[in-house]
Amino acid sequence: MRIGILTGGGDCPGLNAAIRAVVKRGTSEHGCSIVGFRNGWQGVIDGDARPLTRDDVSGILVEGGTMLGTARCHPHKVPGGMEAVIDTIANEKLDGLICIGGDGTLKAAGKVSEAAGVPVIGIPKTIDNDVVGTDAAIGFDTAVTVATEAIDRLHSTAESHNRVMVVELMGRHSGWIAVTAGMAGGADIILAPEAPFDIEVIAKKIKHRHRYKNFSIVAVAEGAIPAEGTMWHGGATLDERGNPIAGSIGTEVTKHIEELTGFSTRLTTLGYVQRGGIPTAADRLLATRFGIAAIDAIVRGESHKFTAIQGEHIVLEDFQTMSGKTKWVPQELLEAAWDL
Amino acid sequence: MRIGILTGGGDCPGLNAAIRAVVKRGTSEHGCSIVGFRNGWQGVIDGDARPLTRDDVSGILVEGGTMLGTARCHPHKVPGGMEAVIDTIANEKLDGLICIGGDGTLKAAGKVSEAAGVPVIGIPKTIDNDVVGTDAAIGFDTAVTVATEAIDRLHSTAESHNRVMVVELMGRHSGWIAVTAGMAGGADIILAPEAPFDIEVIAKKIKHRHRYKNFSIVAVAEGAIPAEGTMWHGGATLDERGNPIAGSIGTEVTKHIEELTGFSTRLTTLGYVQRGGIPTAADRLLATRFGIAAIDAIVRGESHKFTAIQGEHIVLEDFQTMSGKTKWVPQELLEAAWDL
Amino acid sequence: MRIGILTGGGDCPGLNAAIRAVVKRGTSEHGCSIVGFRNGWQGVIDGDARPLTRDDVSGILVEGGTMLGTARCHPHKVPGGMEAVIDTIANEKLDGLICIGGDGTLKAAGKVSEAAGVPVIGIPKTIDNDVVGTDAAIGFDTAVTVATEAIDRLHSTAESHNRVMVVELMGRHSGWIAVTAGMAGGADIILAPEAPFDIEVIAKKIKHRHRYKNFSIVAVAEGAIPAEGTMWHGGATLDERGNPIAGSIGTEVTKHIEELTGFSTRLTTLGYVQRGGIPTAADRLLATRFGIAAIDAIVRGESHKFTAIQGEHIVLEDFQTMSGKTKWVPQELLEAAWDL
Amino acid sequence: MRIGILTGGGDCPGLNAAIRAVVKRGTSEHGCSIVGFRNGWQGVIDGDARPLTRDDVSGILVEGGTMLGTARCHPHKVPGGMEAVIDTIANEKLDGLICIGGDGTLKAAGKVSEAAGVPVIGIPKTIDNDVVGTDAAIGFDTAVTVATEAIDRLHSTAESHNRVMVVELMGRHSGWIAVTAGMAGGADIILAPEAPFDIEVIAKKIKHRHRYKNFSIVAVAEGAIPAEGTMWHGGATLDERGNPIAGSIGTEVTKHIEELTGFSTRLTTLGYVQRGGIPTAADRLLATRFGIAAIDAIVRGESHKFTAIQGEHIVLEDFQTMSGKTKWVPQELLEAAWDL
Repeated sequence: MRIGILTGGGDCPGLNAAIRAVVKRGTSEHGCSIVGFRNGWQGVIDGDARPLTRDDVSGILVEGGTMLGTARCHPHKVPGGMEAVIDTIANEKLDGLICIGGDGTLKAAGKVSEAAGVPVIGIPKTIDNDVVGTDAAIGFDTAVTVATEAIDRLHSTAESHNRVMVVELMGRHSGWIAVTAGMAGGADIILAPEAPFDIEVIAKKIKHRHRYKNFSIVAVAEGAIPAEGTMWHGGATLDERGNPIAGSIGTEVTKHIEELTGFSTRLTTLGYVQRGGIPTAADRLLATRFGIAAIDAIVRGESHKFTAIQGEHIVLEDFQTMSGKTKWVPQELLEAAWDL
Repeated sequence: MRIGILTGGGDCPGLNAAIRAVVKRGTSEHGCSIVGFRNGWQGVIDGDARPLTRDDVSGILVEGGTMLGTARCHPHKVPGGMEAVIDTIANEKLDGLICIGGDGTLKAAGKVSEAAGVPVIGIPKTIDNDVVGTDAAIGFDTAVTVATEAIDRLHSTAESHNRVMVVELMGRHSGWIAVTAGMAGGADIILAPEAPFDIEVIAKKIKHRHRYKNFSIVAVAEGAIPAEGTMWHGGATLDERGNPIAGSIGTEVTKHIEELTGFSTRLTTLGYVQRGGIPTAADRLLATRFGIAAIDAIVRGESHKFTAIQGEHIVLEDFQTMSGKTKWVPQELLEAAWDL
Repeated sequence: MRIGILTGGGDCPGLNAAIRAVVKRGTSEHGCSIVGFRNGWQGVIDGDARPLTRDDVSGILVEGGTMLGTARCHPHKVPGGMEAVIDTIANEKLDGLICIGGDGTLKAAGKVSEAAGVPVIGIPKTIDNDVVGTDAAIGFDTAVTVATEAIDRLHSTAESHNRVMVVELMGRHSGWIAVTAGMAGGADIILAPEAPFDIEVIAKKIKHRHRYKNFSIVAVAEGAIPAEGTMWHGGATLDERGNPIAGSIGTEVTKHIEELTGFSTRLTTLGYVQRGGIPTAADRLLATRFGIAAIDAIVRGESHKFTAIQGEHIVLEDFQTMSGKTKWVPQELLEAAWDL
Repeated sequence: MRIGILTGGGDCPGLNAAIRAVVKRGTSEHGCSIVGFRNGWQGVIDGDARPLTRDDVSGILVEGGTMLGTARCHPHKVPGGMEAVIDTIANEKLDGLICIGGDGTLKAAGKVSEAAGVPVIGIPKTIDNDVVGTDAAIGFDTAVTVATEAIDRLHSTAESHNRVMVVELMGRHSGWIAVTAGMAGGADIILAPEAPFDIEVIAKKIKHRHRYKNFSIVAVAEGAIPAEGTMWHGGATLDERGNPIAGSIGTEVTKHIEELTGFSTRLTTLGYVQRGGIPTAADRLLATRFGIAAIDAIVRGESHKFTAIQGEHIVLEDFQTMSGKTKWVPQELLEAAWDL
């Protein structure tokens, strides 16, 4: 069998580990040929493919990013895109396609599968962890680890200078990184899209805390939203696709806290370091298990499914399970974050 | 309510995070007084207790080990132990006891609960991850992270010197650290107690690999066992309690591989660094969630249960679920480890 | 003897290690009493002092920031400041004062010494590493380490997305962090205050590189300056004290590179994480050696000197050596950075 | 010009950074062709050479070990070795040779230079840091960093279990790693070859300390030596070359401390992780500067010299400076280590 593989959407740590697992398991165990496409769906449109051997994936387990490159491209939104994709799949004589990506990448995979009559299996990756149907997606554990280390570092400056330190973390639609890294890093206030905030209430909490402590840490998801009807509900500035612009909500929160509390307040916008670099052990393991499950599934004829971890087990879920949905931070975890 | 807390058995990263969560949630949310015992059950026997306030637990989230100290002491095995424990619980006017530990600590908790008529809730911790009923125990993620970093470091020396590097990892009864860190670190051979090994087969695999690669990494759990009837089945040297002595199986495996393959082979016994130091973000989060769930449970009158994580949810499981059992590495994961 | 100690200016990793060394060596070896002042010179003005014992400094070796707190306060610029300082020194019966800080803190120390007739010894700390007379100041190695790790993480995203990644690093007046972390992290372009840049030349270099590579990393010191007469020489926006505002030069550089090259370009402003958290081994060692040398010097009657490392040796230098000067990145190092 | 390059002796982090700098600077700045030899002098004997281009060294900056491989081989001790080396140098038409290694590698370089009439420049690397003439050699900073992190991790277990933790660190002939990592990690006792120890004095110090503290950390260099005439002066077990066998002195020290103090005492032998893995920022920078200086030197006709760092400057020193000598830990540093 000839199996194609691509990575789509934003990059994150662990993509290479998944590619490696597909190639090693696919070639050794199943006798497959693996074909890698450059830059996500763009490479399928362009026919930019190359065979991947065990040698090609040697040593990439620990490397961040993706050796295949990635791009935000959806073939059904590009004129002539679907036709080009069908041609490439025919030319490459593919018996299946493994797509590593988020919701957008897998949605495209579903359409391609139907149009080209080729089975597809998805592997979910997103540092935002908002994929329904799986406990975790590739990249999340590393992002939380990097964010937690940053909060650890900010603690000492906050305490030494009697300051409020605001740290804006990734998370446009859900607050997984802010909530979990905030809890792990001992943040005193955590703002996530799941629970719109009242800046005056936040300021009061900080003032109360500063009666017995001289510093505070505030973790803010980039998609956090001020509640309707509160003193300030400007929210984050949005880009043309409706996504918050990095730093914008953090800047506002920082300014308002300083004004309302009178305490010296500083912002750190962590940015791209959250999605790059060496994957954690947990992400390497998850990506490896997903890669194995994906190639095994496609070889035995499955399609329209994505690999998922549920408790200790790797399972397959229908594309339907995640499609168009967002996995929110559960109420129990949000409350735990607030109560400490 | 007055709630006691202790940590028993071997220390590991995340214990302080759990203590902190119990104290912060217990005092702020439930108005409890929290009483900490020094050195596990020994402190209860000796009446070595002190009140724990929010100030006492400030800053300990990131610290390894346990601020309470720990010891391997079982009150029912100490002459007069149970009587002393009952006295202390009466003197301290405890309404409940939270015990952070492994199987031994929680077994003692069950006996104490019955004898003293006081509710007990357990929080599972063990870097070995072999507790039935929970996806993970406190300390495991950090141990895997440390072990994986060590394997990463050994890779470069193995490759530069054309060597076989053997690394012995913790895991007396199950191979969780060896299997997961081995996979995450790209070990070529992984030996775990779950699957007795034939040293001649291992040597053959290494020789085969060295036709196209010039080095190999072998991850060995300290409790790994040679198969019956194989050329060598000496196994690890055991201490008086029947547990393998650190380094002993690694030493044997190293010697036999060098003899059978002729390749220069070196051993690293990682040892205590696996169980110490700053907990990972995942361990801090798990410990915090366990601490919150434990104090909530005891306040609402539960007993004989331990906190567990199953998928994304924190639940309570009966002591029965784990008692006297070992959670093995599942077959799927063992096979994944071998096939790469 | 009674010796006072304070930390002034911005905090950084290693301050606690220096305090610990002064206290341990001072009390054990010299029989001194050590008195710590809160928040730099502000604490001396306010008489906010407390005795420091070996117990007080136990465990702080690995902690970032300063247990004493710090503030940007100069007693000679505060009305009544010098009088208050002289009073406090008399009240506390101090025989000497150890001041850990940058140029500003030590300048104040010189004035206080003359006014109060008390010997002072300085310990240089600054992540910017621009103190003349010493190979290194406390905090620099940690800042470079954090910045290098960030550049490592940005590499994978740059490569996966075919992007130019700009990272703005600390360094208002000199480019030590940008140059050394840039070299250690493999940055392709490094912009430092020591060598004003022409943005068109930079853009040309990037375009040239992208003929055979698909990404670039640009490391920019926050005080980097466009050359006079070049197409763009707006420079960084300055605050009221004439210091560049974080992110401002990075934002401009990013915008211009994207416009001039047409390549997708993204900015990361690393910010406060560079000056917080666990000190590296090298910073802990340097701070410990400085602390020992400082207390030894003051006990044997030295004054107006600061501890310095020159090659392998700790020496004392006159305040004059550093006063009002900036240690620039040497030409050899700048050229090395450009040529790779 | 055609310049050969090799790495000899034990591997360490930073070798690849040095190779990269030589290749990038040599090809771009000087128009040289660079030829890499596999496995140190063995590769020169065997004529196992290959051209190195900028592409070959892309991405290796952060990688531990050496892409060229290394071996402990001295051509003048191999029958026909010198003749083979002379032949290879002639066949490859080399105008110079850059040798990265320790004392043994550079001694061989001197002999080869005389026999073959080709200039040689050395780059010193050794995690032991015992090269006379340079403040630091490649690999030392990373080894100290890894060792310090290990001591940090052992602290929590020592404290939680009221134990003495002994950690044996590398350093056969000098105690640089033990002394500096011991100080940076807050070890309570440090044993180095520079100062033979009396185990009874050590035990007394530990007993004294345990009156007010419940744990101790003992850092032991593998080459540490008991003093003549003391109760125990067995020392480390030596291998056939007279070097201490890993773990042997640590085992003895552990046993004697437990017997003499009665405190539970445990050994960790850190081993190979000290010499592998990602180099620190400082090691990458040092290696890069050394690589640049070495290629510059050989191009302008220098020979029989090695690159050295003295304070902030890279200089060249004669082979004579280091030959057959050991740089000891200076007395000031030893005393600082003892007094804390």
